[in-house]
Amino acid sequence: VKLDHGRLLADLRRLAEFGRLGTGVDRPCFSPQDRAAREWLLERMTAAGLDARIDGVGNVVGQMRTAPRAVLIGSHSDTVPKGGWLDGALGVVYGLEIARAWTEADRRPPVGVDVVSFADEEATFSGMLGSRSFCDGLLEGELETATDAEGWRLRDALAELGWGERPPARLDLARHLAYLEAHIEQGPRLEAEARRIGVVTGIVGIRRIRVRFRGRSDHAGTTPMQLRKDAGAALIEFCHDLPLRLERAGSADSVWNLGRIAIEPGVANVVPGFAEVLIEYRDLSTSVLDRIGAEIRAATVAADGRAGVTADATESLALPPAEMDPAIGELIERAARGRDAPAMRMPSGAGHDAMVLSRHLPAGMLFIPSIGGRSHDVAEDSHEADILLGADVLADAALSLAAREGGAVG
Amino acid sequence: VKLDHGRLLADLRRLAEFGRLGTGVDRPCFSPQDRAAREWLLERMTAAGLDARIDGVGNVVGQMRTAPRAVLIGSHSDTVPKGGWLDGALGVVYGLEIARAWTEADRRPPVGVDVVSFADEEATFSGMLGSRSFCDGLLEGELETATDAEGWRLRDALAELGWGERPPARLDLARHLAYLEAHIEQGPRLEAEARRIGVVTGIVGIRRIRVRFRGRSDHAGTTPMQLRKDAGAALIEFCHDLPLRLERAGSADSVWNLGRIAIEPGVANVVPGFAEVLIEYRDLSTSVLDRIGAEIRAATVAADGRAGVTADATESLALPPAEMDPAIGELIERAARGRDAPAMRMPSGAGHDAMVLSRHLPAGMLFIPSIGGRSHDVAEDSHEADILLGADVLADAALSLAAREGGAVG
Repeated sequence: VKLDHGRLLADLRRLAEFGRLGTGVDRPCFSPQDRAAREWLLERMTAAGLDARIDGVGNVVGQMRTAPRAVLIGSHSDTVPKGGWLDGALGVVYGLEIARAWTEADRRPPVGVDVVSFADEEATFSGMLGSRSFCDGLLEGELETATDAEGWRLRDALAELGWGERPPARLDLARHLAYLEAHIEQGPRLEAEARRIGVVTGIVGIRRIRVRFRGRSDHAGTTPMQLRKDAGAALIEFCHDLPLRLERAGSADSVWNLGRIAIEPGVANVVPGFAEVLIEYRDLSTSVLDRIGAEIRAATVAADGRAGVTADATESLALPPAEMDPAIGELIERAARGRDAPAMRMPSGAGHDAMVLSRHLPAGMLFIPSIGGRSHDVAEDSHEADILLGADVLADAALSLAAREGGAVG
Repeated sequence: VKLDHGRLLADLRRLAEFGRLGTGVDRPCFSPQDRAAREWLLERMTAAGLDARIDGVGNVVGQMRTAPRAVLIGSHSDTVPKGGWLDGALGVVYGLEIARAWTEADRRPPVGVDVVSFADEEATFSGMLGSRSFCDGLLEGELETATDAEGWRLRDALAELGWGERPPARLDLARHLAYLEAHIEQGPRLEAEARRIGVVTGIVGIRRIRVRFRGRSDHAGTTPMQLRKDAGAALIEFCHDLPLRLERAGSADSVWNLGRIAIEPGVANVVPGFAEVLIEYRDLSTSVLDRIGAEIRAATVAADGRAGVTADATESLALPPAEMDPAIGELIERAARGRDAPAMRMPSGAGHDAMVLSRHLPAGMLFIPSIGGRSHDVAEDSHEADILLGADVLADAALSLAAREGGAVG
């Protein structure tokens, strides 16, 4: 099975024309440009000999009907607003090219390749919509309650696209033996370590805790410093001391972010009576997440009542970690070694459709380096050689997987 | 000269009916309720025998035409939105009652009392509009450029009220020998020290410096902690270390406030690439203000470049301090002692019309305690006994001042 590098790059570049914005792409799910991209993908899958369709939530799914079983390969083709040209598109086009090369190399494989572009991974309406629909079905009432930023209901968007009445494509455990997803790293680690392939060990769990401080708003000119109950000052002290605590509680791979801070009333001449910080933290291990959460709560309790300011903590999000299949990880690692590119094992700090799939069947993910670690921005890019290497490694791994499960192919 | 306490309180309570909101008052300048209050004040001044009018910017000015010279007494009758019932209204009604009692007690005084309610001290359109117009004239183009929060132009507001064509009332240095303003403290110091009269030594200067931090926005899941350029973390560290520096640089009366903090993009899963804090600081002494400013700049220079984040500081406001006349301060202090209420000397941390007047003629201010230090809120209040004591002390001080300048009265 030998990939056609020229064809792969041409397809990636053609896909980037849908919603092109300078060096990037603006293709939010169910926008006219996303629809056009999905219809183009449908054509390309059909031309590759796949039995392809767009389902009731916009997933584009192509099946190699000549094979009774299949490795499912893909990702998503929607982007964040003003996003990059690779992101999920890379993994979708990898799947397309691998299926195409597979079909050309083999006549009737016992294990084939199915290809998917999931809908709305980026949460224009509802995050990981397509993969959740594919694996679990939608949440009750989701078609009515999910809207985009302008309030357009998901049901109306799908109806307008003409897809709303179609049945959803569904995961078929009798057919699908594994899910493989390639993605750009979206971070700087591979580049920093000079590695060209990342093998994802798992997708981190994400939790968020909101810590609120309540003091008293006072005139900032007439209230002496020592008579204030300054919620902003309490927040500053809390946020200053927190990182040291979290370093002790976390693992080497733990990350956290104090990404949203609000102080109220937020004017120059009033002592802040209220302040709030949203703390997000991520790790592969549930017990590490528990330790970090406990540390934040302990810091909140310690801050509560200091200098007349109360503090309380509320968890606002808890997404569990997802493990990738270790055996598939080994196959990817071996494939990378076979291409003279020793891989690096790493967690994924970002969410991916593989998170949803991995709860139902063995899943594996491969990363290629992001230049400067940039993503979700028009500046996002990867070196062409890395794009091609990633496709070859994923194809080799898929081949080994198919061979292991169904006998030799190609 | 003996004040009529019942009449004073009745007038204060009647004035609080214009825009009454529960226990407070909502009477922004040039609102229908502010207009009605100014027209009522005009009537009361006229009934008190004053030659009174509303001028071209809404100032209500009453002159005791029987006297060739006068002590000007007053404040402002507009309020902040959802404000308190006393604030500036107290000083206006003090002036009205003192002029009234003065007229009743004396036939042809060599020094009389003029009364004023300045317009828009609270900056609904443009802060201290009335006193600035009275002393200096308006800024060039101010009638066109000053608007309220809804974009209503000052010129249009005055035209609609029918006042726009009227000539402005002006300070007359041949007539006005001093300005006296009473006000609620708007802070907790008198209450904390169990003093009933404050003698204002000066009105603090106010300066503001904006410190901006620029790092790099990165994905908060995929970017390891040590590879971040977190502008939010830089701001937290800066704000944490600043108070100790400012305590060293400032005086015992210095105050500062970190009242506005913004971090961007301000979402949970993106490392802040930009952060900004607005630091306001106040002191009576220009050299202390200079020292504090230098300390903030030094802290900014020390922070600049740390952990990949740049920092810079920009001054965004610099209002000079205003000294009250020490001799008038002594008269107020003596008057308080004469009423068995030892006064406390203190700076005013808030701005007042006296700030503008003091640059042109001797000015003095008297504070009465604010319950709980509250102001600019419907909860604002003062004890009735303190309201009455303040009026008596101000009347006594005005009498001494008039006696000193023009011979005995009453």
